[in-house]
Amino acid sequence: MVKMKQLALQEIKSLSLSVLDRAGYGSAHAQSIAAMLYTCQLDDCQSHGLFRLLMCAQTMQAGKIDGHVAPVIETGDNAIVRADARGGMSLLAFEQALPSLIEKTRKNGIAALAVNNCFHFSALWPEVEALSSQGLAAMAMVPSHSWVAPAGGKRGSLGTNPLAFSWPRRSRDPFTFDFATSGFARGEIELYKRAGKPLPEGVAIDKAGNPTTDPQAALDGAMLTFGGYKGSALSIMIELLAGPLIDDLTSLESMEFAAGTGGAPYHGEILLAFDPAHFSGGRVAENDARAERLFADIVDQGARLPSQRRFAARARNLARGYVEIPQALYEDLQAMC
Amino acid sequence: MVKMKQLALQEIKSLSLSVLDRAGYGSAHAQSIAAMLYTCQLDDCQSHGLFRLLMCAQTMQAGKIDGHVAPVIETGDNAIVRADARGGMSLLAFEQALPSLIEKTRKNGIAALAVNNCFHFSALWPEVEALSSQGLAAMAMVPSHSWVAPAGGKRGSLGTNPLAFSWPRRSRDPFTFDFATSGFARGEIELYKRAGKPLPEGVAIDKAGNPTTDPQAALDGAMLTFGGYKGSALSIMIELLAGPLIDDLTSLESMEFAAGTGGAPYHGEILLAFDPAHFSGGRVAENDARAERLFADIVDQGARLPSQRRFAARARNLARGYVEIPQALYEDLQAMC
Repeated sequence: MVKMKQLALQEIKSLSLSVLDRAGYGSAHAQSIAAMLYTCQLDDCQSHGLFRLLMCAQTMQAGKIDGHVAPVIETGDNAIVRADARGGMSLLAFEQALPSLIEKTRKNGIAALAVNNCFHFSALWPEVEALSSQGLAAMAMVPSHSWVAPAGGKRGSLGTNPLAFSWPRRSRDPFTFDFATSGFARGEIELYKRAGKPLPEGVAIDKAGNPTTDPQAALDGAMLTFGGYKGSALSIMIELLAGPLIDDLTSLESMEFAAGTGGAPYHGEILLAFDPAHFSGGRVAENDARAERLFADIVDQGARLPSQRRFAARARNLARGYVEIPQALYEDLQAMC
Repeated sequence: MVKMKQLALQEIKSLSLSVLDRAGYGSAHAQSIAAMLYTCQLDDCQSHGLFRLLMCAQTMQAGKIDGHVAPVIETGDNAIVRADARGGMSLLAFEQALPSLIEKTRKNGIAALAVNNCFHFSALWPEVEALSSQGLAAMAMVPSHSWVAPAGGKRGSLGTNPLAFSWPRRSRDPFTFDFATSGFARGEIELYKRAGKPLPEGVAIDKAGNPTTDPQAALDGAMLTFGGYKGSALSIMIELLAGPLIDDLTSLESMEFAAGTGGAPYHGEILLAFDPAHFSGGRVAENDARAERLFADIVDQGARLPSQRRFAARARNLARGYVEIPQALYEDLQAMC
């Protein structure tokens, strides 16, 4: 049993800001990173909450990120917003581009945001939920590092390439998912290794391209995508849309750029946003009801909608006014302040 | 071994037009359907080629489709084209809306087409390839009938919900995929049943919601999505974007509408198109090279890009000037002329 530490909600940001300041992030970047960590930690999303402060510090130590650079937001007369992070963390660029993305979506019915030249460590669900909270549907995709083999392959070519989606629901938490297209997260394999447990079948191959359940052999080899050749095709689509389409790196190129220095990978991100008012010809209420009927049919048969555990954690943590993080993480972070 | 019949390329359309005319389709609809069947049959895509003439005739016999109706294409000042098929087959609406979708994509960088109120039987790859052949990337999604259970569920709520994507490659066949988000196609289960073979594990549940490998129990129960809860989440996204977003039916509603009459399901379709020139800030050639490097890395390790067998069939059939279809199908179609 991991020993947990209670942390008051207001301490999440102050602790984050303190660590980020000491790590070398300027105030604007630190604020946007702290806001994201708060959102994740509030939902008990431990893997993308305060734990990621360690990666933020490592990324700075790796020496390539600019902790003070101001993103440049470009909004032409098309339906695309470009946010050039200019070698900084992605979050400030996203935050500054979000109002333009919303405006372009409300104007055109559909719009896209390309975030370029950014270091990226964060979950995508807070970003698609930033759009669904405005009544828009949204999809987000990023590459990562080429740790994942294509279906039928022998080595890593693809990133863990998450896909996130959020659909607004009136007076309810949205329908949201955010999943890696790799069968396993890389961090999960690390956990199996530390626990000395074999991996399930079908999630990894070794250096020679043969199936393996040995965590170290998997780390030396490659992960596989979820869902066989279909998951592999989806992962390639994400490479293309969040890479070459938007003039940014593939996972192969991102891995080369990092050259083993560690920290957050450097690449781009694409978000698509949809305005139901435009798409439905103004019949939003009728179509909301139609979507709700589908959700009800899913839930009524005992299946779960994604993200429900997260929403339950959010409600509980907001009510009690604190979150719990591992005591050891708390001590590590205190030492970094 | 199925006995095959050689059919000259020019006969694909003439045979189709003759069957469609007798079945009750007007000339405009028959031409658009025949063009699609030609595209599929040329690529040896037997499941969506001339075989589908049987479904076209059944759909007419079911009594709900209008074989003569003219679609209405609406292009407002946003980035969305709406094609109201008005109770006809989807293909004529798509064909008539395609130029506007291309124009809007070239203008805005990203645009969408919503096809509404259509009967739908066709593969999606010819439609996304109609866009990639113009240098645009494209994604397409449709619901179907609620034959597929959500992850953790006991009965059908979702359609087979295919997702198709195509990426343009200079002087080469595009990168294209088109897969059902169900683990199996419904037709595959029928084939297992006819062959008296058990299904693989994990593709279906029976009426009580228990896993089954019995084809008839699966047909009476529900299929499962590919890739567990991730495939299920993706399938729900497709329901939402190709249904309530665009003011059209979910797979549950489409199944109710059909009320067991058979033939093609009735629902909507959404296509998204992306102009690399806008998204990449004009750096198309550099980014094409980046995508090609990824494709090369995949192919070099012995993995296959999707659709390669189809492209090989196309080249072979164009060179020899004929396709092969099952003799029994040919005889059935002759009897329908």
